Amino acid sequence: MDRKALVNQIRSKKSFLCIGLDTDLNKIPKHLLELNDPVFEFNKRIIDATKEFCVSYKINTAFYESRGVKGWESLVKTWKYLPKDCFSIADAKRGDIGNTSEMYASAFFNEASSQMSFDSITVAPYMGEDSVKPFLKFDGKWVILLALTSNEGSKDFQNLKVGSDMLFEKVVCKANEWASDEQLMFVVGATRGEAFLNIRKQAPTNFLLVPGVGAQGGSLEDVCKYGMIRDCGLLVNSSRAIIYASSGLDFAEAAAAEAQKVQKQMENVLQAIF
Amino acid sequence: MDRKALVNQIRSKKSFLCIGLDTDLNKIPKHLLELNDPVFEFNKRIIDATKEFCVSYKINTAFYESRGVKGWESLVKTWKYLPKDCFSIADAKRGDIGNTSEMYASAFFNEASSQMSFDSITVAPYMGEDSVKPFLKFDGKWVILLALTSNEGSKDFQNLKVGSDMLFEKVVCKANEWASDEQLMFVVGATRGEAFLNIRKQAPTNFLLVPGVGAQGGSLEDVCKYGMIRDCGLLVNSSRAIIYASSGLDFAEAAAAEAQKVQKQMENVLQAIF
Repeated sequence: MDRKALVNQIRSKKSFLCIGLDTDLNKIPKHLLELNDPVFEFNKRIIDATKEFCVSYKINTAFYESRGVKGWESLVKTWKYLPKDCFSIADAKRGDIGNTSEMYASAFFNEASSQMSFDSITVAPYMGEDSVKPFLKFDGKWVILLALTSNEGSKDFQNLKVGSDMLFEKVVCKANEWASDEQLMFVVGATRGEAFLNIRKQAPTNFLLVPGVGAQGGSLEDVCKYGMIRDCGLLVNSSRAIIYASSGLDFAEAAAAEAQKVQKQMENVLQAIF
Repeated sequence: MDRKALVNQIRSKKSFLCIGLDTDLNKIPKHLLELNDPVFEFNKRIIDATKEFCVSYKINTAFYESRGVKGWESLVKTWKYLPKDCFSIADAKRGDIGNTSEMYASAFFNEASSQMSFDSITVAPYMGEDSVKPFLKFDGKWVILLALTSNEGSKDFQNLKVGSDMLFEKVVCKANEWASDEQLMFVVGATRGEAFLNIRKQAPTNFLLVPGVGAQGGSLEDVCKYGMIRDCGLLVNSSRAIIYASSGLDFAEAAAAEAQKVQKQMENVLQAIF
């Protein structure tokens, strides 16, 4: 999905919500456990209930890998079920030397090889340019590079001073030499609202994927105030706060209500630009 | 496997060779393609032929993920087939916020959940302490943290000056606060021999996993000269140069011959310490 199509989705759905499918067998409603593939069945119902309120789904691959082959089967089935008008994200945090990153790119972008072809993948920057480039060779696919993450440990290295900048600013600046804003986004945690000012200096036009609203406590208001640009430029992710809104029979309805609540807030904010 | 057991293996096999199973369906001998699971069949024969010459196998997960569910099946079968006296490495370069890293740890350490339990996993440091800690909760399991990698792109961020140190030195120094040298190793590329001097200042006693000997051109002599310590403290990996030594019917014998050649060099070096 290209930038224009993504922005059109945001405009027409009045939403820049991304829903994270961090689906944990231990957290989904108990009545689903009798089904053949409870994780997929949960995802299916969540997707059906929420797809009108969001423009993107993010699949956190760790939750699927943790169950080995069975988990990987649920992952493939979930990818196939994603609505094709939603921007799909493999939240996989991959990155390795060139010939290995090529394999990771095949895993998430090459349907003939892996039965999956996401629109984008999250990538860790530590290994530099040749670890990122293989993902960029796929036309119409996006790299979403880690810049400033939402967790406490982000301070350990991302905030280190490198000359007059912090490391995460160097990452953003350098990566923008490798690809255009039509193929490169950055992960910027919502828990650090004021940091968006610094990010926007280095990345004035890139889309940002923003985790940390919801369970992790980030503020949607701050994110928009400091991070929003002319064509929105934001995908704000919420995972646990939406998909686990209820653990009862009404879990899908509860997820829809929660997603709609966020969508309404987003609709208000979007009036300023669209 | 604890450090003592690993060192005992090195001592008795007179080798600190790790063989990387970067098994690519497009590179294995054509006659294997008729079999049900060619990747596993290739690995099985390579393991049988080389296990007396190495102390460790490293499975590069990207090569398996690239084939989706089928690849993950080959991965699980290969893990089960690894000799239990060899130190097993999931070369997965994972790392995410705490609750997600817990899931990645389950994927590679918790056999009840994923049917696999490697001795160790490679982890990317960019997200800091809480992204690494969940892997350390597993008794007897190791984190192998990326420090200075063997690729060209390692210069983009790992070599940035942070105060008087380079970023990779900060990573090594900080990570040694999180775990002891009984649970924490570092990846240091063989292509940068002299860099071992700096690494050993920050990590005088940690084992180092050293890729880049062989296809990537690193020198075993330099690695040993600058990196070896009293109980060896090195696992030197070779992947393509060994497993693809021949593409014919004799591929396993050729791999064995190549592995033995490296083992003999290692035996010579080890005489200085054992």
